[in-house]
Amino acid sequence: MNAPTCPACTGQWPADGQRIADCGTSIAYLHDDQFFPGWTFLVLKRHATELWQLDPAERAQLTEEITRVASAVATAFGAVKMNYELLGNQIAHIHWHLIPRRADDPAPRQPVWTVTHEPRQLPPAEFDARIALIRAHLGA
Amino acid sequence: MNAPTCPACTGQWPADGQRIADCGTSIAYLHDDQFFPGWTFLVLKRHATELWQLDPAERAQLTEEITRVASAVATAFGAVKMNYELLGNQIAHIHWHLIPRRADDPAPRQPVWTVTHEPRQLPPAEFDARIALIRAHLGA
Repeated sequence: MNAPTCPACTGQWPADGQRIADCGTSIAYLHDDQFFPGWTFLVLKRHATELWQLDPAERAQLTEEITRVASAVATAFGAVKMNYELLGNQIAHIHWHLIPRRADDPAPRQPVWTVTHEPRQLPPAEFDARIALIRAHLGA
Repeated sequence: MNAPTCPACTGQWPADGQRIADCGTSIAYLHDDQFFPGWTFLVLKRHATELWQLDPAERAQLTEEITRVASAVATAFGAVKMNYELLGNQIAHIHWHLIPRRADDPAPRQPVWTVTHEPRQLPPAEFDARIALIRAHLGA
């Protein structure tokens, strides 16, 4: 972590309580808004903002981490489709959103960003149970 | 291409006129709505719907293709940030959206899906010029 004004590099974001597992080049966290159950994101350990700033081996490794976590989250939360998104519009530091879209999804044909909703913050025990569930599916 | 009801496998989508280049495991196309200038997407040649259905070498190769095209598109259209999205909510066949976000973006901190707009269909010569510009940056 090496960018002095970056929230990810300076420890301002994400919160420790969101941490699921160390995946290798990245760390997996549970999204604080759990309106879409199981929404997880992976934060690259080092600072970079675009895929071409990584070397090919690092990109391949990160892709394997995304794939492994996406598969675990899909199984844990019964996704009928996963969404994978690297945006960086607000925090440029590379982080991948992995969003399970389930059979009960309110807008299954649309990106999640079109679904206006109040953020769903879970009681701590329920939030931690989701983290534990994903860890179990990761074998972490 | 091998899924009998899949629009990508049966040639219903995308249109030939959108084709930019054969990238290896995928083909790059220019998005028909050019409201966000340079919006490009890559369609996997074979049928798969989730990253874990690919083997690791195939995933790594696809990641290299996404990276190469994203870098070319970013340079061609002056992106300050690229968005990379694998959704599949409407067409599950793996296709990656690569969306340049420019300094003149109408909502730079938001995903493109939140920006309500009329689809911008360019006159054919202008559409083809954008394809040619991306090809030039790809060396294709």
